[in-house]
Amino acid sequence: MNDAEEQIRKVLSDRDIALGAKNLEALMAYYSPSVVVFDAIPPFVYKGTEALRLAWEGCFPCFPDSFGTEIRNLCIAVGGDVASAHYLWRFSGMEPDHPAMQTWMRNTTLLERKQGEWLITHEHWSVPFDPNTSKVVFSLDGSG
Amino acid sequence: MNDAEEQIRKVLSDRDIALGAKNLEALMAYYSPSVVVFDAIPPFVYKGTEALRLAWEGCFPCFPDSFGTEIRNLCIAVGGDVASAHYLWRFSGMEPDHPAMQTWMRNTTLLERKQGEWLITHEHWSVPFDPNTSKVVFSLDGSG
Repeated sequence: MNDAEEQIRKVLSDRDIALGAKNLEALMAYYSPSVVVFDAIPPFVYKGTEALRLAWEGCFPCFPDSFGTEIRNLCIAVGGDVASAHYLWRFSGMEPDHPAMQTWMRNTTLLERKQGEWLITHEHWSVPFDPNTSKVVFSLDGSG
Repeated sequence: MNDAEEQIRKVLSDRDIALGAKNLEALMAYYSPSVVVFDAIPPFVYKGTEALRLAWEGCFPCFPDSFGTEIRNLCIAVGGDVASAHYLWRFSGMEPDHPAMQTWMRNTTLLERKQGEWLITHEHWSVPFDPNTSKVVFSLDGSG
């Protein structure tokens, strides 16, 4: 693993620690001011840290009180000062009955390096949907 | 716009032409053998061109007989031999009543350059879902 790849892993891990602590200021520090987000829930797209801050703030009450996260199948690519990562992601932790605990998501994250710091320029979070019911599927094996 | 960015635009446009023609051989030529896809419908993830070929083949009967595509909000980043693009995407064309015509999707595409050719290494297609109903939302304004 090269240095840049290790730095990207740390950004993702630190972002998740800030998320688990519901620390909005710490969380927002990982995003570029011009970030474009395709979130798992509407709207289709939002742009900029002001919209992202409101979205994260709106999500916090739906999250477990205390949680960690699990990242699986992480694949990172770096070229100069741009990078990408794609992975499966879920909440983990001490509240196994919380609805959020059953939810796997897919995430593709783009980053750029500015003055030596990697910032997230794009996040795409999603779950697939069953075309017969238009309902989303939260489990990796498609069972629910 | 630099050369690489123009090449990426052409890959996306050529992929869509192959898709519109339901030309599986032409379509598959744009993908890396190790492509990882997060599709809009299950499974959560599939890997490699064999799985992707089967998935595209399975989709073709659900597509309109003849269609174009529209890409909106395209944002491309290139660093050396890796690149990314994110955009909104939909079918366009002559069958306005076909269900697929009402469907906008978000797409994040990753590419790498090998022997001068850009190949798609990752595609993430999705629509957002309403957390109250677990149903997906197909229209940009969230109306349906």
